[in-house]
Amino acid sequence: MLRVGLVGYGYWGPNLARNFNSNPDCNLVRISDISEKRRKLAAQTYPHAEVVADTNLATATDLDVIVVTTPVFTHYQLAKAALENGKHVWVEKPMTSNTDQARELVNLAESKALTLLVDHTFLFTGAVQKMKTLVDEGVLGDLYYYDSVRINLGIFQHDINVIWDLAPHDFSVMDHLLGPSARAVAAHGCGHFNTGLEDVAYITVFYDSNLLAHLHLNWLSPVKIRRTVVGGSKRMLVWDDLNPEERIKIYDKGMEVTTREGLYHVLATPRVGQMYAPVVPDVEALKNEVEYFVKCIHTRQKPVNSGEAGLRIVSLLEATDKSLAASGKIIKMN
Amino acid sequence: MLRVGLVGYGYWGPNLARNFNSNPDCNLVRISDISEKRRKLAAQTYPHAEVVADTNLATATDLDVIVVTTPVFTHYQLAKAALENGKHVWVEKPMTSNTDQARELVNLAESKALTLLVDHTFLFTGAVQKMKTLVDEGVLGDLYYYDSVRINLGIFQHDINVIWDLAPHDFSVMDHLLGPSARAVAAHGCGHFNTGLEDVAYITVFYDSNLLAHLHLNWLSPVKIRRTVVGGSKRMLVWDDLNPEERIKIYDKGMEVTTREGLYHVLATPRVGQMYAPVVPDVEALKNEVEYFVKCIHTRQKPVNSGEAGLRIVSLLEATDKSLAASGKIIKMN
Amino acid sequence: MLRVGLVGYGYWGPNLARNFNSNPDCNLVRISDISEKRRKLAAQTYPHAEVVADTNLATATDLDVIVVTTPVFTHYQLAKAALENGKHVWVEKPMTSNTDQARELVNLAESKALTLLVDHTFLFTGAVQKMKTLVDEGVLGDLYYYDSVRINLGIFQHDINVIWDLAPHDFSVMDHLLGPSARAVAAHGCGHFNTGLEDVAYITVFYDSNLLAHLHLNWLSPVKIRRTVVGGSKRMLVWDDLNPEERIKIYDKGMEVTTREGLYHVLATPRVGQMYAPVVPDVEALKNEVEYFVKCIHTRQKPVNSGEAGLRIVSLLEATDKSLAASGKIIKMN
Amino acid sequence: MLRVGLVGYGYWGPNLARNFNSNPDCNLVRISDISEKRRKLAAQTYPHAEVVADTNLATATDLDVIVVTTPVFTHYQLAKAALENGKHVWVEKPMTSNTDQARELVNLAESKALTLLVDHTFLFTGAVQKMKTLVDEGVLGDLYYYDSVRINLGIFQHDINVIWDLAPHDFSVMDHLLGPSARAVAAHGCGHFNTGLEDVAYITVFYDSNLLAHLHLNWLSPVKIRRTVVGGSKRMLVWDDLNPEERIKIYDKGMEVTTREGLYHVLATPRVGQMYAPVVPDVEALKNEVEYFVKCIHTRQKPVNSGEAGLRIVSLLEATDKSLAASGKIIKMN
Repeated sequence: MLRVGLVGYGYWGPNLARNFNSNPDCNLVRISDISEKRRKLAAQTYPHAEVVADTNLATATDLDVIVVTTPVFTHYQLAKAALENGKHVWVEKPMTSNTDQARELVNLAESKALTLLVDHTFLFTGAVQKMKTLVDEGVLGDLYYYDSVRINLGIFQHDINVIWDLAPHDFSVMDHLLGPSARAVAAHGCGHFNTGLEDVAYITVFYDSNLLAHLHLNWLSPVKIRRTVVGGSKRMLVWDDLNPEERIKIYDKGMEVTTREGLYHVLATPRVGQMYAPVVPDVEALKNEVEYFVKCIHTRQKPVNSGEAGLRIVSLLEATDKSLAASGKIIKMN
Repeated sequence: MLRVGLVGYGYWGPNLARNFNSNPDCNLVRISDISEKRRKLAAQTYPHAEVVADTNLATATDLDVIVVTTPVFTHYQLAKAALENGKHVWVEKPMTSNTDQARELVNLAESKALTLLVDHTFLFTGAVQKMKTLVDEGVLGDLYYYDSVRINLGIFQHDINVIWDLAPHDFSVMDHLLGPSARAVAAHGCGHFNTGLEDVAYITVFYDSNLLAHLHLNWLSPVKIRRTVVGGSKRMLVWDDLNPEERIKIYDKGMEVTTREGLYHVLATPRVGQMYAPVVPDVEALKNEVEYFVKCIHTRQKPVNSGEAGLRIVSLLEATDKSLAASGKIIKMN
Repeated sequence: MLRVGLVGYGYWGPNLARNFNSNPDCNLVRISDISEKRRKLAAQTYPHAEVVADTNLATATDLDVIVVTTPVFTHYQLAKAALENGKHVWVEKPMTSNTDQARELVNLAESKALTLLVDHTFLFTGAVQKMKTLVDEGVLGDLYYYDSVRINLGIFQHDINVIWDLAPHDFSVMDHLLGPSARAVAAHGCGHFNTGLEDVAYITVFYDSNLLAHLHLNWLSPVKIRRTVVGGSKRMLVWDDLNPEERIKIYDKGMEVTTREGLYHVLATPRVGQMYAPVVPDVEALKNEVEYFVKCIHTRQKPVNSGEAGLRIVSLLEATDKSLAASGKIIKMN
Repeated sequence: MLRVGLVGYGYWGPNLARNFNSNPDCNLVRISDISEKRRKLAAQTYPHAEVVADTNLATATDLDVIVVTTPVFTHYQLAKAALENGKHVWVEKPMTSNTDQARELVNLAESKALTLLVDHTFLFTGAVQKMKTLVDEGVLGDLYYYDSVRINLGIFQHDINVIWDLAPHDFSVMDHLLGPSARAVAAHGCGHFNTGLEDVAYITVFYDSNLLAHLHLNWLSPVKIRRTVVGGSKRMLVWDDLNPEERIKIYDKGMEVTTREGLYHVLATPRVGQMYAPVVPDVEALKNEVEYFVKCIHTRQKPVNSGEAGLRIVSLLEATDKSLAASGKIIKMN
């Protein structure tokens, strides 16, 4: 039985508390939050857990796992202390504020043989797992483009811009589906509230083989959209995460390239075929992810969303910031 | 009664023929097309019109108006000949293949006091006219961003890329709504069929006052989307041109900027309000545009979609091509 | 070449005029309408056709076909005169105001060996033809129910209620898909404007083998819906006629009946499978129907939407009226 | 602090457990379920609560409230025992299997001065509360019709048909919005699995003043729809419970009745106006309902969803069954 301490009972913390509490291999021993109001909520819901104000759970001897779900700039210190004290760590995305911090945590977990998982929840959804299978089995053919729109009326956070808030979702899915081979990044964006933080951003990620990925991230959209379109040489795909009954649609459509020439003639004509929406299991991703985390700890398996994966995502975020600061200059990944 | 000759009975020509034929102030005298098959179709539908293969209608003495709806690279020659022979000209978008040609046509029409209209049909839709009123009356407040997605499985054309095919629609609406003050353009894109032509493109247009416009244009999308989101300081707007019952939605939403600070605190919180969909008259834009063209000829009024407007659109297209060729470099408009 | 005379240039007439005019085997010789305004419109669009006020085209010797697209109560007289004078007849739906009239027209066409077609346009859409194939090939299995919602903010007509206006569409599709074996009809409805005409109606049609069909017809709906759901033992289907990209969806879903019993246990559990949207050709149904009409005349083939089919639809309408008048009593078809 | 015992930890029980556990005025003391598997789940999630197999919690002296969330046929016995032992009762919908049982519970609660609440959750949603305000304030004008579609691929239950499963939702909303004055009921339906239970049903409910309500209930639909349309003389409304961003839409549409007559002339023409979607608070209805229940107990206020309301819903269900058994005969409510 893993003894779990959770730091941060704000926006996402209650979901983690609920899932760790319901997992039959975990004991939710302690919840920490600096806000008295949130501590009250935690205590009412989990009367059997200890609820404390001190966020330093790392040195407690009655804990095996530290779950870090606090603002980004605190991730590094909290995770580092936990690893140094021999605890397995679950840390929210983005992993850290920069790549140096992320690299240090990766090395620390490696040297201590501890499990370090970055909560890229989307990898545990039925939709992303279905897409992973489709891409890996070649159902889409060669990939042409990956276009994601992730926009809504957002809650501004004072320490990160819209990119650090939303792009980790896309970057982690892209890392999973397209591989870790992003070649370069370019970004444009703007902020409108004198905070120095972008609230609208467009990011282009360049891959080899003419594959282009593009993200539209926006905290100022009146409508909520979560839609990714993936074009391939054989088939195309739409992932609409807000359409629970048709989350993934696969289109047997594409282009037939013809060689006939002549005035008015077209070079490529649309090939129209049927669409199908496969069954996408409607599981709670977080429940699966917690079970997977427990399994990784027990089997010493490295998670797919390990610290290394988290580091790659932070690298992309850093490159994006650099491009933004340089008016959209293309920043090469190394 | 204006005597009308139409050159080009391909994709768009039949719509123009139908509307000029139905207009009580026009006589559809002659239709020209180089394809025998299309000439047969024209003759069956308009038995009272003369149908010819020769595209040179400019010198005919029984015509007052030449309608040019042929491939882009032929626009300049056909329109020039028509103007030189004293005919009023309706030319399809984009006006010409480059700005030099466009400028020459503008000057020619000016010096001959002839009406030159570029068919930017969208300006005559109920939706764009409603948006124009909303923007001009300040209903949206200061504009923050303009985001357009115009994607579908397209018919590739051998003489123009996806930008020259689709961007004229957006550029003309932006020119109308945001004004002719675009400051700079940057673009990324790629092609997948060894034609040298982009089939996927992302364009960012920079305006003063922190207003950003962005277009996603795509011939390889399995789904057809025609959606523009406009964010303003007071209200936000969605124009979904494929939703005839709710083409325009106005959201009384935005951000309340607060100054309180502190760990975890947000700087701006969403202001949620009602949405409303105003009545958008369901007129045929082309019918209105033909009536407007006739009126401009009779009153010697300069059309809102004059040659000058057409030239501005071609300038944006040229700048976009330049940025694409320079890997997304920001190209200033002058 | 068939010489065509068209009576009625109101709501639907212009569509028929356009399609008969474009058909290479037809000459649109004459258009008749009692309204001067509509005659002007017709004359402007078809300068080569004769436009007259007299609706009696039946005795003209220069016509082979009479197209009747006038108010329902005039269909019988106009069609009868045309048949008696040896003309083939295309008549709008519903065929006549009652079954006696319809039967007389059927007999007249039969005895004169003339083609009589009732314009049940939906039978010529790609969607209905696709559904016909699916049902006939057993893709859906045994049919369980047929549910249609056909509602919008309607234009009230002074001579017919919402049922005579909208139900012919559903009844003709049901006649085509489910066969002519409707066993009984029951209906509820109400009117709200002291016209004596229902504006909201619900109709249940009983078939053998536990198949239930149900229609919701409504002229007072703020939203336009055209959606039919068909449940079968093997698969289920949704036909959404306002969704041009996914007009037909086929669901590999159903119920697994199990025999295990016991407190809390279910008797049948949902079988979830994929959905697919087949390619539905986006043709203009009316164009196809006109071509089919011409072919039927030339080959003396009886149309699928013959007078007999039109009579069956009128029978269902009559039975519905009877049930309405008797507070929803079940009326048997004979 | 109210001490709460919950009977039934199946489909809906966990939601009630979670909300009673989180309510600051309640202690979730005991959970009972006959299934060992479900008891394990309950114990893992609520380690501080006692979890037992015996469903007889009524005689326990350490409980103030009994929550009954078991199959319908057990409601009467469990609620009766609880009331007889002086406990306040929360019982799931439908309240009981017949009106006799419901009436007895109402009288028992009355004579013992105990709070008896039937869980008609929808009354506590932001959507229904918004509609209640709109109807009561006359925003819709006189009501013309109430049309609800509540269909999905359902889990068959062995003790009740689709009507007893789904209609309580609609009947309780209708009772709340339209008042308790339903005049009569008629129903058609059919079952397809030899269970003697209907899986598809259509119910018409007649009110005074020409107001018609109609329900489509269906366990065999491949798509999930939860949509109610309400037509009024001034405005119309659509409640789409699956569209969280536009749950309620109000249409400023209707009919203008004109008196001009004449051939082809219409008697009523559509009045088209704007649509607006008011802000509908996105609260968890069950949380609100539990708070309301606690308040009713403390203030001895009779809940809006009291036993009397529950009885009216069961009366409508009984009448529907009677009509079904009599082939759709109209059954008068008394």
